Amino acid sequence: MPDLNPEHLKAVINAINDGPFFVHMSMKVTEIGVGFSIVVIEIERKHMNPFGGLHGGVYAAAIDTAAYWSAYCDLPEENGLVTIDLKVDFLAPVLDEKIIIYGQRIKSGKTIYLTEAKMCDKDEKLLAHGTSKLMVTHNKQSINDVVDYIGSSKLPQKYLRR
Amino acid sequence: MPDLNPEHLKAVINAINDGPFFVHMSMKVTEIGVGFSIVVIEIERKHMNPFGGLHGGVYAAAIDTAAYWSAYCDLPEENGLVTIDLKVDFLAPVLDEKIIIYGQRIKSGKTIYLTEAKMCDKDEKLLAHGTSKLMVTHNKQSINDVVDYIGSSKLPQKYLRR
Amino acid sequence: MPDLNPEHLKAVINAINDGPFFVHMSMKVTEIGVGFSIVVIEIERKHMNPFGGLHGGVYAAAIDTAAYWSAYCDLPEENGLVTIDLKVDFLAPVLDEKIIIYGQRIKSGKTIYLTEAKMCDKDEKLLAHGTSKLMVTHNKQSINDVVDYIGSSKLPQKYLRR
Amino acid sequence: MPDLNPEHLKAVINAINDGPFFVHMSMKVTEIGVGFSIVVIEIERKHMNPFGGLHGGVYAAAIDTAAYWSAYCDLPEENGLVTIDLKVDFLAPVLDEKIIIYGQRIKSGKTIYLTEAKMCDKDEKLLAHGTSKLMVTHNKQSINDVVDYIGSSKLPQKYLRR
Repeated sequence: MPDLNPEHLKAVINAINDGPFFVHMSMKVTEIGVGFSIVVIEIERKHMNPFGGLHGGVYAAAIDTAAYWSAYCDLPEENGLVTIDLKVDFLAPVLDEKIIIYGQRIKSGKTIYLTEAKMCDKDEKLLAHGTSKLMVTHNKQSINDVVDYIGSSKLPQKYLRR
Repeated sequence: MPDLNPEHLKAVINAINDGPFFVHMSMKVTEIGVGFSIVVIEIERKHMNPFGGLHGGVYAAAIDTAAYWSAYCDLPEENGLVTIDLKVDFLAPVLDEKIIIYGQRIKSGKTIYLTEAKMCDKDEKLLAHGTSKLMVTHNKQSINDVVDYIGSSKLPQKYLRR
Repeated sequence: MPDLNPEHLKAVINAINDGPFFVHMSMKVTEIGVGFSIVVIEIERKHMNPFGGLHGGVYAAAIDTAAYWSAYCDLPEENGLVTIDLKVDFLAPVLDEKIIIYGQRIKSGKTIYLTEAKMCDKDEKLLAHGTSKLMVTHNKQSINDVVDYIGSSKLPQKYLRR
Repeated sequence: MPDLNPEHLKAVINAINDGPFFVHMSMKVTEIGVGFSIVVIEIERKHMNPFGGLHGGVYAAAIDTAAYWSAYCDLPEENGLVTIDLKVDFLAPVLDEKIIIYGQRIKSGKTIYLTEAKMCDKDEKLLAHGTSKLMVTHNKQSINDVVDYIGSSKLPQKYLRR
């Protein structure tokens, strides 16, 4: 595989963090690398279910996001990637004001990618675990759609020529 | 099983729809009955991922919610119910401005409940399918916690004496 | 969709029931129709885990099989179908000597099919529930591979000309 | 946690490998330790689906087994453990005559354990990935049931006094 362009990844992180749902959820991708990603959410009252705990949808949104971006570096520049499923196991209530989600790619196949993510509190206590499968596409949900939708400037190329 | 009190269900729906994440997501439970529930989300720009499609976390939050409340009528008044897992299969992109999610209880065991939910557009096209397991608790996440957290008035009793 | 040829389905059922693992497990597909299938296993001591209960792998094998064949009628004759995932929720121990598994197709997309299956005892008590996703292929695991592997006679065509 | 008794683990491995389904499937647990287990299957024609590939039920049985026993060392001697769900992602066809499955415990809670397992060929190529949840019981499926069912001699105690 050719080398990834760090300028591309920086620009992608900036662009996706401007995505409406990311902003709405106070959710940020802080790192994307080969086979991993890191997502952070600052917990506020708006994330709470009627019982006063973190809504399951927040766990799921965070795990979906970290799982997705953990696979991005494996994807050829011209292809897209869509999520086909998501599974979340809820392991402990969230008591801190911040959660960190570590996405990891388990396998990148030709068509299907399998990823996982672990949600932790700031003391690395495991709060939830998830897996997600993605499908490589030829014309749907490529990174250029982010540029178009967010209106960010053209991205630097993904891979460096050697 | 004794008869459910419709006044109780009405009050529960009102209270949970005041939950912070429900309001934040423009998500409403519109019906709760024995073995089912209905959830509605009005889609706005805030729900969009950076590609311009509905974020997977919105699908997941809606399915989690519909699945959860489909089981509520089976739960003895003094018990609580926590979600232990959620699985979502994403089947089609959302193109309408409104999604309706039909929750259904598959089985209520002594300790574990299995539920499912189907997300549809207004023409009943299936957009996503999910399953979720819940665990009956003796002291966690009972409906009284909603009253305490939301600050709603005391709920009418759940079951009618005969 | 053109009409299915009942002679084709009969021949397919006969051929797959000669598959080595089917025979080994005393597992039989008894029906395949549009959007559904039925699988039956006669429980013997060989299916038992070391605790004396039905091994989880038997539940899983039966659900995988019923889910798979529920989708078969939707598949164009020239394509193949491979299972990409399987999820099983275990709901009750098996006490009878026979289990019946009802497969049902939830959605047939262009590339991905979602199916489910319910395992019941002879009184229709629900013992387990599962979902499974399949991927349509262009050159892998088509029904002709069954003819080749099992050595059955050529299958009647799948669809009837009108 | 007190120290595990290696004699107990050896005796457990011997006893469960005499379980009917283990023998029927040519499946053996070769190791059980704190947070992990290893399972091996020698692939034969009997494991094949009608297409000539390894039946999904074999993948599932192996992953279910490795996931289950990875959690055994965390379980207090007097308790039992039942599987409540199993998810398998199928990643590659099996071409070797032997598969090795590595079970790993992700989290042991008070009531629910989450485990995972990776199925590999002899070159450590990942063929399938799974997760499974188990529930701690107070009177069901304890290790003494294995002694009763298999008819093995009384097991050495699980933990060493210090």
